[in-house]
Parts: sequence; C-alpha cells; structure tokens
Amino acid sequence: MSTENRSGCPIASALDLLGDRWTLVVLRDLLTGKRIYKEFLESPEGISTNILADRLRRLEECGLVERVLYCDRPARYRYAPTRKGADLLPTLQALCRWSNRYDGETWTPPTDFMRDTPSQRLQKLRRQAQPG
Amino acid sequence: MSTENRSGCPIASALDLLGDRWTLVVLRDLLTGKRIYKEFLESPEGISTNILADRLRRLEECGLVERVLYCDRPARYRYAPTRKGADLLPTLQALCRWSNRYDGETWTPPTDFMRDTPSQRLQKLRRQAQPG
Repeated sequence: MSTENRSGCPIASALDLLGDRWTLVVLRDLLTGKRIYKEFLESPEGISTNILADRLRRLEECGLVERVLYCDRPARYRYAPTRKGADLLPTLQALCRWSNRYDGETWTPPTDFMRDTPSQRLQKLRRQAQPG
Repeated sequence: MSTENRSGCPIASALDLLGDRWTLVVLRDLLTGKRIYKEFLESPEGISTNILADRLRRLEECGLVERVLYCDRPARYRYAPTRKGADLLPTLQALCRWSNRYDGETWTPPTDFMRDTPSQRLQKLRRQAQPG
C-alpha cells in the first residue's frame, strides 16, 4: 500500500487502504470477536495465511488494529480493532443492508451487529476479552 | 468476476463485486452526475480507459448501471446508476465520514451528497439528464 492518496476524495482515499476483497472481511472478523490466526483462518471464505498476515499488518500500520503478544515461546499475537477500526462498523452495516436487499442468498447478520454503534461494539469486545 | 459468492456473508458477497480500488470510485462519479467516458476519465484519480470500461461493464452486468446509446455513428453510450446502484450511497457516505474523521487531507463532500437518500439522489440525476 502506498502512503500517497490518489486524490483528496475521501472515498478513493479509503479504498487505497480498504479496496480489495479481503480487508473488510478481516475487519468483520475482528468486529465479531475473532482474535487469533486460527480463528480468522476458520472463516468460511477460506482466507490464506499470507493474505491474512498481510492484511493484519497493513491494518496495524494504519492504526485500525492493535496486536498484543500473549505467548512468548513461540511468539503469538492476539488482534483487536482500535476505535479507528471500529468506526468502519457503519460502512460494514451499510454493505450488509445493500447485500441483504439485493442478494437473497446472503445471510442476515445478528441484530446486535447491525444495531451496535462502534462504541457499543468495542465495549462488548473488551468485555469478552477479559479473563473470565 | 465470478458469479459464485465466496460465502453467504453479505459483506464478503458485496466485496466479490465491489472489492477493488476503482469500482466505488466509478460509482461515486455516476452518483455525482458523470455520464460519459470523457467525464469519468477527467476525475482526479486518473482511471485508465480499460479499467473504466471493465468496471462499467461489470456494474451493468450486475444491474447497478444502465447504458443508453445516445449517438449511432460512432456508437456512444451514456451511463446512469440504477436504483440498485444508488442504494450504495449510504455505503459511500459512511466511507466519507470515516475518511474525513481520520484523514485530514481528504476533502469534505458537498452537503447534499452526504445528506441525500438514494431516492433523492436519483431524482436529481434524472432532472439533470433531461434536455433543457
């Protein structure tokens, strides 16, 4: 990814980071509580390890994702969306409404995913992440 | 573009069509009143003719864009968003809000672009398109 925007257009600039088939799928997983590689790899789209690694790295570089070391040997990381990442929730919700309207084969997301504000979603993820 | 969705997920399915750096930029242009090749090519992102042709063809195949012959010799077409295409306006508006919040170098879109419902936007485009 270039750090230069193609133009000052906010749509084109967002797509410089998000405009591919996978980045928003990874963000969907982060916003539904997936945190470790194994969990992302289990999603039905079948993302490959190298695409997953690349997208998580770019999302971290751009401040949409935080990475936390949770195991030293071997080094393992847990990922979580930042506020900047969670603020893409309205974009994901809008895409869901569009697909559900025009593509009858798509599933309806859980009600709370569709209704949550970014803050509500982040609070839920943080509660889940706390050791029981 | 494959006609097979990667999964039933409405986000992944939308990205099967829209997940690249250009498709939503072309849709932005359609929703701001651009109608002929020359106008799309003048946008600041500098889309190439072959990418533009490919994206307009895919958008037409998927029912987001209508093409109308407006000159016989040489054959020339005018493009306009359908209701299905205009219904992506809330997604574009959400992307704009996100970019404007996090990237100070992006411009603020015109107020009516940010406030219009898809119906309002289509009505305006149709009024503009009528011969004066």
